[in-house]
Amino acid sequence: MSERFGVRAVCGKARRGAFRARQGTFETPTFMPVGTRASVKGVDVERLAEVGASVMLVNTYHLWLRPGAERISRLGGIHAFTGWKGQILSDSGGFQVFSLKGMRTLTEQGIEFRSHLDGSRQFLSPEVSVRVQQTLGVDIAMALDECPSSDLPFGQLEESLDLTFRWAKRSLDARSDPGMCIFGITQGGCHRELRTRAAQQIASLPFDGFAIGGLSVGEPKGSMYEVLRYHVDQLPPGSIHYLMGVGTPEDIVEAVSQGVDIFDCVMPTRAGRFGRVFVEGEPPFFNIKNSRFAEDSSPIDPGCACVACRTYSRAYVHYLFKVGEMLGPQLASIHNLSHYLSLMSRIRSSIEGGSFDALYASIKARWASLDLHELA
Amino acid sequence: MSERFGVRAVCGKARRGAFRARQGTFETPTFMPVGTRASVKGVDVERLAEVGASVMLVNTYHLWLRPGAERISRLGGIHAFTGWKGQILSDSGGFQVFSLKGMRTLTEQGIEFRSHLDGSRQFLSPEVSVRVQQTLGVDIAMALDECPSSDLPFGQLEESLDLTFRWAKRSLDARSDPGMCIFGITQGGCHRELRTRAAQQIASLPFDGFAIGGLSVGEPKGSMYEVLRYHVDQLPPGSIHYLMGVGTPEDIVEAVSQGVDIFDCVMPTRAGRFGRVFVEGEPPFFNIKNSRFAEDSSPIDPGCACVACRTYSRAYVHYLFKVGEMLGPQLASIHNLSHYLSLMSRIRSSIEGGSFDALYASIKARWASLDLHELA
Repeated sequence: MSERFGVRAVCGKARRGAFRARQGTFETPTFMPVGTRASVKGVDVERLAEVGASVMLVNTYHLWLRPGAERISRLGGIHAFTGWKGQILSDSGGFQVFSLKGMRTLTEQGIEFRSHLDGSRQFLSPEVSVRVQQTLGVDIAMALDECPSSDLPFGQLEESLDLTFRWAKRSLDARSDPGMCIFGITQGGCHRELRTRAAQQIASLPFDGFAIGGLSVGEPKGSMYEVLRYHVDQLPPGSIHYLMGVGTPEDIVEAVSQGVDIFDCVMPTRAGRFGRVFVEGEPPFFNIKNSRFAEDSSPIDPGCACVACRTYSRAYVHYLFKVGEMLGPQLASIHNLSHYLSLMSRIRSSIEGGSFDALYASIKARWASLDLHELA
Repeated sequence: MSERFGVRAVCGKARRGAFRARQGTFETPTFMPVGTRASVKGVDVERLAEVGASVMLVNTYHLWLRPGAERISRLGGIHAFTGWKGQILSDSGGFQVFSLKGMRTLTEQGIEFRSHLDGSRQFLSPEVSVRVQQTLGVDIAMALDECPSSDLPFGQLEESLDLTFRWAKRSLDARSDPGMCIFGITQGGCHRELRTRAAQQIASLPFDGFAIGGLSVGEPKGSMYEVLRYHVDQLPPGSIHYLMGVGTPEDIVEAVSQGVDIFDCVMPTRAGRFGRVFVEGEPPFFNIKNSRFAEDSSPIDPGCACVACRTYSRAYVHYLFKVGEMLGPQLASIHNLSHYLSLMSRIRSSIEGGSFDALYASIKARWASLDLHELA
């Protein structure tokens, strides 16, 4: 067991745990709402706490470029800046920089790129990333990893892993604030050999947690599930396991069943802004803009206690979207986050109670053979 | 005294009162947040109640055309639809229809116009307006009045008043639900003779309250204040007095000093969406997007208890506006409403305590010789 993470109960490979970081201890499995630019879109932090969020994710790349890590530091750090009293995890910035096709140059030292804001020349390295995250004052930092294109030749993917390994060591060395956790990240796409190599490399380092990167980036759902079935076991069992950028409720129970502890995804808020809402029931999500909700006086989800469901009808939220009132996206976003955090709470209870398998089966059944393109 | 309205204290001509309508009794003077399309933009009803709002205004024209009064009625009425547990006042729809230049025809019977949504032919009359407001289920309806262009010849303005008088009687006759209040409206622009005539006409009818229309429509501030100085006294002294579409905090204390009891205005929310925030202090409002706030760690208004001020810094709200995060307009809107409702609360206390004159003087001093174009 890591000194920060403890498993309190298991149900198969699913783990009910708790992780201790600077702001206290949070319960796992949990889901981290995404506040890309230090704001979970449309949701104030009081509402975020109300629905049970314990960790917020922010994006280093965006905050580094604007308003700047030093400015946030001068303002008292990322907690004072965002008003969020829970934990804050930041990504390394690498994912965004590697998405800047044609505007970046990769070397052993790091990545030179041009800012998407003003075209200015910037340089990201493991040391810079850790320094920026530390300056922000986050509770959990991510090590900078290379995010290679999955269609590279196998040999180049191996080289990429080795670079990520060297960067991982440099990331750990760059930390000067012992109160800030750092998580390492495995890459390797859907190649079992590469994933195994990545796990051996990253798990050999004294990270405070271990993340699975490079999934949910366009591969078929079945391929991701296949990786999870062997790869989570390759991570240190006593440490927290983080599946980055995932996913649907189905993805989440699937990953929990393989031993994943924490998740982040823009899905609940992004889907919400477009009117897609998640519910307990069949189907497990629908588009509130659909005309069949125009006179539906029931709440979005009768079992949900969020501000949207305790106050408003489907018909009203439908109407807000139809006329373009900003309250519509706000309500759908907070509802979806409430749905996700409520799911995580039920997952935790079910692991404690030994009934995770039943919850897993019910969610898998509800999500089976759905067309998920609408959520993409 | 009207049986619905009671004056509990006075301070000069300023009145501290209470009005009884279907949802209970609300305290005056008060300010009504504007939910044009049944939503105060960016603000959920729990937050709206939290800042002390007791009456929400909705626009009959918009709701009549979309989603339709019958639909709202089938959904349980405007309170069930909006989730707002306080009072709801609706305008008559006339102001919007008269704004449809070139798309409307006025007759004794009413106004034929084309919908701004689909060009469909529609007809608004006193009877239709009252029926729509009654179908919505509002607590306080407004009588349909003609809103003439102020540059008409005097004789035509007189004829317009007489038409509004006839329509006022028809509005009262059209009410079938005795639980719904109806307020009459005076027009007459800035002509003392016309205002006097309008007051004599409208005050002769058994309305539940009396509103001053046709001000704050582009005339100089001084002209509006001049009308208020004689015109409020022309309304029945035992009834509630409503100044429609007004205004700045200065306008509000000026009108209260002349005996006005309730107000509505889009200013706090519209200004908020554009980053203008109201504060106790000098200047009494500023643009949070101004770069001088980029590292200002104080709340928008240190004396304010709203969710924006108890949680976030000026620097953070500044940043939200700079990067275009929707939380920025949300926070500025709820803050401004909190500022307005807090002002009304202080006005009520000062009238009770006999210190309204001091509050009046301090607000007039703070607003003296300001350039208000930024708020327009």
